[in-house]
Amino acid sequence: MIKTKATGPIPPGYSAIDGELAIGGQKASALVAENGSPLFVYSSSRLDARMAQLRTAMPDALDLHYAMKANPFPPLLRHMVGLADGIDIASGGELRMALDAGAAAEHISFAGPGKRDDELEQAIRAGVTINIESPSECDRALRIGTNLGTTPRLAIRVNPDFDLKGSGMKMGGGAKPFGMDIELVAPTVKRILDAGADWRGFHIFAGSQALSADAIIETQAQTLELAARLATMVGQAPDHVNLGGGFGIPYFPGDEPVDIEMVGNALSEQFERLPDILASTQFAIELGRYLVGEAGVYLTQIVDRKESQGHIFLVTDGGLHHQLAASGNFGTVVRRNYPAAIASRFEEEPSETVSIVGCLCTPLDRLSDNAAMPEAHVGDIVAIFCAGAYGASASPANFLGQGPAKEILVD
Amino acid sequence: MIKTKATGPIPPGYSAIDGELAIGGQKASALVAENGSPLFVYSSSRLDARMAQLRTAMPDALDLHYAMKANPFPPLLRHMVGLADGIDIASGGELRMALDAGAAAEHISFAGPGKRDDELEQAIRAGVTINIESPSECDRALRIGTNLGTTPRLAIRVNPDFDLKGSGMKMGGGAKPFGMDIELVAPTVKRILDAGADWRGFHIFAGSQALSADAIIETQAQTLELAARLATMVGQAPDHVNLGGGFGIPYFPGDEPVDIEMVGNALSEQFERLPDILASTQFAIELGRYLVGEAGVYLTQIVDRKESQGHIFLVTDGGLHHQLAASGNFGTVVRRNYPAAIASRFEEEPSETVSIVGCLCTPLDRLSDNAAMPEAHVGDIVAIFCAGAYGASASPANFLGQGPAKEILVD
Repeated sequence: MIKTKATGPIPPGYSAIDGELAIGGQKASALVAENGSPLFVYSSSRLDARMAQLRTAMPDALDLHYAMKANPFPPLLRHMVGLADGIDIASGGELRMALDAGAAAEHISFAGPGKRDDELEQAIRAGVTINIESPSECDRALRIGTNLGTTPRLAIRVNPDFDLKGSGMKMGGGAKPFGMDIELVAPTVKRILDAGADWRGFHIFAGSQALSADAIIETQAQTLELAARLATMVGQAPDHVNLGGGFGIPYFPGDEPVDIEMVGNALSEQFERLPDILASTQFAIELGRYLVGEAGVYLTQIVDRKESQGHIFLVTDGGLHHQLAASGNFGTVVRRNYPAAIASRFEEEPSETVSIVGCLCTPLDRLSDNAAMPEAHVGDIVAIFCAGAYGASASPANFLGQGPAKEILVD
Repeated sequence: MIKTKATGPIPPGYSAIDGELAIGGQKASALVAENGSPLFVYSSSRLDARMAQLRTAMPDALDLHYAMKANPFPPLLRHMVGLADGIDIASGGELRMALDAGAAAEHISFAGPGKRDDELEQAIRAGVTINIESPSECDRALRIGTNLGTTPRLAIRVNPDFDLKGSGMKMGGGAKPFGMDIELVAPTVKRILDAGADWRGFHIFAGSQALSADAIIETQAQTLELAARLATMVGQAPDHVNLGGGFGIPYFPGDEPVDIEMVGNALSEQFERLPDILASTQFAIELGRYLVGEAGVYLTQIVDRKESQGHIFLVTDGGLHHQLAASGNFGTVVRRNYPAAIASRFEEEPSETVSIVGCLCTPLDRLSDNAAMPEAHVGDIVAIFCAGAYGASASPANFLGQGPAKEILVD
C-alpha cells in the first residue's frame, strides 16, 4: 500500500471552466493549445488584486516595492512597474530590464553583495539608488561617481543584529555577506556626506518567506528601532528606510497565509509613535514572492503514464529545468510537495496515488511525490501552483538540452 | 574562533606557473584577462588523458560512451565525439547538438523518461537508437516509425531489480520512472520484433556517482546477469547492452577516486565467462561526470572582501547561477565544500579562514564555507574545481538578471 503524501494548499480563487482549471478566464487546455507545453501562465488580475489587498492592509504612508528577482518576465515586470511604488533590483541586468519596463530611475534601488565596477557605473549613470554593502564598495562607488562627474545616490544596507524568526532565508542576525555591521554604518554615512554624494538612507532586510504575522511584526519593530538608533548615531534623519520584506506564501501542507491586516495594523501603530528623528522619513517594504508567487501557474502535459512495482508515474514534458524549487532542489532540506493538480480534471475527485515527474533523465526531477489525484492519462495537463516567483528565472532552463518554457501574462 | 571546514580534494595534476593555477598551460590571470570573469575553463589534454587511462583499464571489447548531459559545451562535445565510441543523449535538443558536433547517428542513443512525440520522430528520422522506457512509449515509437515509413532502432531501458550501492543517484532497485520493470521487457521486445522494427538490445542503468570499485563491480556483475536473464526470457541475443555508468569523482573531503584498474580487471574476468547468449553482444558503459568533471575549473574574480562579526567574506562575481551544485543546492542534503583555491595565489599557504560567496543577493549563494585560504583581495581569482560536469548547463544562468558565464576549451 502506497502512503499518500499531502500536496500544498492551492491558492484561493482558482476555479474551473468546463471542469478544467481556468487562469485569467482561459481554460488550461486552451492555453496549452495556443501556447504549447510546458507553459508559465501569470494572471494580471491576480497581481492587481494582491496589490490592492496589500494597499488596504498597510499604512497609507508606506511605499510598496517590487523585488523583481522574484519574476523578471518583461510583460509581468511592466505590469508591476504600474502597480508598485518602486522596483528593487539585484544586478546590472535587472537594472536594464527595469528601465526597459518603464521604471523611473528615482524609484529603483540596487542591492547585492557583489556589485562589479561596471554595474556601479551603470547604476550611477542611470541615477538609481545603490544600497551600499560594505565600506570598500562605498569607496568604489564614490570613486566611480567622481570619475563620471555624477553624484551617486547611496543608501546603506545594514546587517541587522536580529533575524526574522521562522523565515525561510535569514539575512541578518549573525556574520553575513549582506550589508554592513552596525558599527560601520555611521562612519560610512559620514564618508558619503563628506564626499558630497547623496545619502538616501538605510536598507535593512532581515529575512524572507515568513508566514507568521507575529514574527514579521516583531522584525518590523526591531527594524524601526534599529533605523532610529542608526540615525541617531549618524546624527541626521534618513530620507528613506527600506524595512525589507519577509512576507511568505503558503507552499506546503499546513502552511497558512500571512495575516496582513494584523501586520498592517501593527505597523500603523508603530508609525504613530515614531521617534522624532524618523518623523519625516519615507518608509518602504520590498516584496517579491508575496506579490507575484500565487499569480503564476506552471502547466505541463503528461507524455507517459507508467507503472513500476505498483507505483503509478505520470511523466510530464516539464520538470526541474523550469521548476527547480518545486522539485525540492533549491534551498530546501526535506522535499515536500508544492500545490499541484490535474488541471484538465480540476473538478474530479482524487482516485489514485501517483508520482508526477519531469522528463529529465535524473531522479532529482520530481514534481509531486505520491500525491492523491484523479486518474490522468497522456495528454492531460498538470498544474503546479505558486509558480509566479522563483520559477522560470531560478531554474536551469538549458539542462539536458531542454530550453526555457514559454511564459505568458493573461488577464 | 571560527572553525575551519575542509574543502574537497583538488584533482591531481593541476600545477602552478609563476605561483598561479595554470590550466592547459595558461595562467588563471591570463585566462581571465583574455576571456573575462566568471569563466569555465575545460582542458582538452585532461579529457584525452582521462579517456586514455580508462581505455587502458577497461577491457578492449568494451565501448566507452559519453553521456553529454554532463557537459554539452559544443567545442568540448566535438572533442568528446572524437574520443568516445558513442554519445548518449537525453533530449531532442541534445540530439541536435550531438549531430552538430559530428557524432554519427549509429553511435548515438537516446534515453529519457518523458520523450515527446516530436522528439521520437526526430530520433527515428535521424536513425539513432531509442532506449524505450515504457510499453506505451514503444507503441508511440512504432506508430511514428510506421507513419514515417522508417524502421525505428529500439533498445529496451530496463528498471533493474538492484541498485548501485553508495551511489549518489539511484536509478534502480525499486519503483522508478526510468525504464520498464523486468516482467515487461520480453513482451515489449516481442512487440518490437513483430512490428518489424530493429531491436538493438538493453540499456540498464542502476545509478551514478559511486566511488567504491567493489560497488561498481558488484553492479556490473548483476547487470550482466540481468542482461543474460532477459535475453533468455526474450529467446534472442541482444546486439548491444549498455551497462550504465556509475563512476563517480571525488568532490568532498575524504572522497577517494574510483580504482578503475580493479573495475576493469573484474569486468575482463566477467567477459571471459559470459553465458552463450551474450557471446556476441557488444557491451558499452556510459560515463558523463567521470570523463569531463575534473577537466573543468570555474574561475571567478573577487569583487569585495568584507568582514562581518569577525568572519571574512570574499564576495565574487560568480555564484550559484553558474555553479548550482557547488553551492550545495542541487541534489545534496548537507552542504559540503567543493575543492576550491585562490587561483592567483595557488602556491601560497593558507593563512586565514574565509567564506567565499557569489554575487547573488541570496543566502543560498555560497561557494566555500569557512575554508582555509591564503589571504586574498579584490581582483584575486577563485577557482572551483570539478566544474567540468553539471556546472554551466545545470545552473540557473539567468537568475537575478546575471546571464551565463563564458566557457572555453584550452589545451
